Amino acid sequence: MDRVPLASLRGWDFDAADLNLRHESGRFFTVEGLHVRGAPGAVPEWSQPIINQAEIGVLGLLVRKREHGVECLVQAKMEPGNPNVLQISPTVQATRSNFTRVHRGKPTKYLDHFAHARGVLADVLQSEQGAWFLSKRNRNMIVLVDEEIPPAEDFHWIPLRELRALLHVDGMVNMDLRTVLACMPATVDHWDTAARTRGSELPAQEHPAGCHDNVADVLSWFTGLKSRCTMTVRSAPLLGLPEWTRGPDEIAHVEGRHFSIIGVSVRAGNREVAEWDQPLLRPVGRDVIAFLVSSSEHGRFDVLVRARTQVGLVDGVEMGPTVHWGPSHRSDDEPEVLDWVLRAPKERVLFDTVLAEEGGRFHHALNRYMIVDTRSDIPRHVPDDHRWVSLLQLEALVRHGYYLNIEARTLLACLHSVAGPRTRTPGQGAGQ
Amino acid sequence: MDRVPLASLRGWDFDAADLNLRHESGRFFTVEGLHVRGAPGAVPEWSQPIINQAEIGVLGLLVRKREHGVECLVQAKMEPGNPNVLQISPTVQATRSNFTRVHRGKPTKYLDHFAHARGVLADVLQSEQGAWFLSKRNRNMIVLVDEEIPPAEDFHWIPLRELRALLHVDGMVNMDLRTVLACMPATVDHWDTAARTRGSELPAQEHPAGCHDNVADVLSWFTGLKSRCTMTVRSAPLLGLPEWTRGPDEIAHVEGRHFSIIGVSVRAGNREVAEWDQPLLRPVGRDVIAFLVSSSEHGRFDVLVRARTQVGLVDGVEMGPTVHWGPSHRSDDEPEVLDWVLRAPKERVLFDTVLAEEGGRFHHALNRYMIVDTRSDIPRHVPDDHRWVSLLQLEALVRHGYYLNIEARTLLACLHSVAGPRTRTPGQGAGQ
Repeated sequence: MDRVPLASLRGWDFDAADLNLRHESGRFFTVEGLHVRGAPGAVPEWSQPIINQAEIGVLGLLVRKREHGVECLVQAKMEPGNPNVLQISPTVQATRSNFTRVHRGKPTKYLDHFAHARGVLADVLQSEQGAWFLSKRNRNMIVLVDEEIPPAEDFHWIPLRELRALLHVDGMVNMDLRTVLACMPATVDHWDTAARTRGSELPAQEHPAGCHDNVADVLSWFTGLKSRCTMTVRSAPLLGLPEWTRGPDEIAHVEGRHFSIIGVSVRAGNREVAEWDQPLLRPVGRDVIAFLVSSSEHGRFDVLVRARTQVGLVDGVEMGPTVHWGPSHRSDDEPEVLDWVLRAPKERVLFDTVLAEEGGRFHHALNRYMIVDTRSDIPRHVPDDHRWVSLLQLEALVRHGYYLNIEARTLLACLHSVAGPRTRTPGQGAGQ
Repeated sequence: MDRVPLASLRGWDFDAADLNLRHESGRFFTVEGLHVRGAPGAVPEWSQPIINQAEIGVLGLLVRKREHGVECLVQAKMEPGNPNVLQISPTVQATRSNFTRVHRGKPTKYLDHFAHARGVLADVLQSEQGAWFLSKRNRNMIVLVDEEIPPAEDFHWIPLRELRALLHVDGMVNMDLRTVLACMPATVDHWDTAARTRGSELPAQEHPAGCHDNVADVLSWFTGLKSRCTMTVRSAPLLGLPEWTRGPDEIAHVEGRHFSIIGVSVRAGNREVAEWDQPLLRPVGRDVIAFLVSSSEHGRFDVLVRARTQVGLVDGVEMGPTVHWGPSHRSDDEPEVLDWVLRAPKERVLFDTVLAEEGGRFHHALNRYMIVDTRSDIPRHVPDDHRWVSLLQLEALVRHGYYLNIEARTLLACLHSVAGPRTRTPGQGAGQ
């Protein structure tokens, strides 16, 4: 992959009318300008570039039952923006352009299993980075198959518990697989007859079967926050955004903050199309993204979520991490909470891994994901935009869209890797 | 209430820039133009006026437990567009303009019970008429109170079962109360110790406790439909919309179809402000809006929903009635199904009542709501945009937004009036 000036991107141009960056086919995505007003926090108003990819793609994972538990069909896949190029991806990662084959490439493998799905374990439209994508949503699907499916080249069946262990390896599991794993229903852990189940150790009122009642308070808290969101967003020409400048190679913030829009030329071995140019969003640095959790002796986990207002979210607000702080991110996080997370004693840090965001749209977007156990050191009373929710409440919410943002879903997938039966039955080889 | 020409509406004017109709304060709502493309059905493209009221209001119902069951605090309220002026309304029906008192009127009674809510039984953002409102959503709330609340003037505590019986009276229960009643959790019927419970008669797999599994297939069907929705909507100047003309008194369709935008001057006795002018949307006629249901001997109800693509819905698609047909409505409903509903033998018609839509925005918008029992006469195999769902699945879905449209929610409230314990325990005085 090589950097190329924005003006030299083959097939891409700034539209004469709205000055936004788009492909000559009118497909794929555009980079547009946005003006934001009424956001909460210290900076209520700003302008920024944003990626507009209105079409809904499929992120699909095939799973099968085996004696030792569930196995997932994953792919070793390259994306232009990934720092280590190859990452573990879900079975299918297809834009609508892939379905309709706008780019005249090869058909997407295994897509038929999701187009005519039986045995659906999860199927939900979920948002992606609300600071970088305008109204982007993808269809997250998990499908259980009965028949034998031999893995194609670059594909592998691997046990769910191994996949969860691999989440702890820097940059190994890609964002698309993480968001799909976050949607994995708790019931699949019961299929693992060799392990103790999560559900059986939980107090009755926290069992999934109680979902009809126990999310009511969380829903009410969140509905109230959404109904009070006053942020408005309107389009603005990409060229000429206040506080952003266009250099020969990129569109960047005048103070070098947040991110820039760059151009790249890509040559790929195993993709549907062998060579193409495209813009990428390049964040200026690494964020710290963390859940504070509170574990109990009974194996119960409570998570402190924070309602996050992000310009690209359809509802304006979704539940996000306790901490989301860094140079690429507009945030009014309390420095004390960040400090608390970064200085936590080692035995309380349940998860601490650098993971990459979507490599197809972002350039070297690496964030440090952490899960830190407060062991109830932090007061239960929290500001109104924070809320303690149980792991099982999160699992009930993630079945629907508009609740958990992409960063919270990555952390939820990671929490499964530390909160599942694996870590409580030592010797099964899938702990941290 | 008197009709006045659009040009004479006090405080309202056509914006010089975008030619849309708005209030001089910039608040309340605007009437805008819209151009639609890629809609499913016989007419994929058209232009139309639409009401844009971005702010989220509260539709709130206070309930209390009594020995004979649940009671609801309702208001006898007038709206300018209602044919019979007074209707039964929820405890609170407040726009954000009411909260912030933009119109400098009296404060809204009982609003505090919803601002600092305990005992929340339901709290969800729900859409309104997707053909007439752009992205409109209101916060539907039901709050259980412990303390004694004496009813103010025009307010009354009435038993839920009586309220449900009143749904069968033409034009009696207003739209805002119907959508809130649709969100009433099934558990409240268990509080009625004098009546048999609904839950106990249902097969185990259909009990609310099974919700974690039994909506999975419905969610997957619906997620698939949403992800394939290709409708796009863009703003267009209200004056000059193709196929719409502006006369002295109204903006109307050239063939007299769908609806018109008219102006009215209102004088009210019991409202926050005593006198005002406003535009109203006036549908040209009455729609037939129906659920086909299939009842079993065990008291179980299945409902045939149809995914409805409507221009004003945020996701483009929500689940709607089996039949929604009429002069005011763009529809590609099968004439056979309509015929089947209209010719159904009397004993199969469980509900047949003319009800008014939101009187604050629509002028004499009356629709005929029907529930017709197929008793399994209709094949279980249906077109892909139709789906048989159980009453309990609907109750699980209505806890979240973006699933059931306003017409389906009115029918769900009406279905509670025929499917609840009341009709199966004759002599309790709340049947049809």
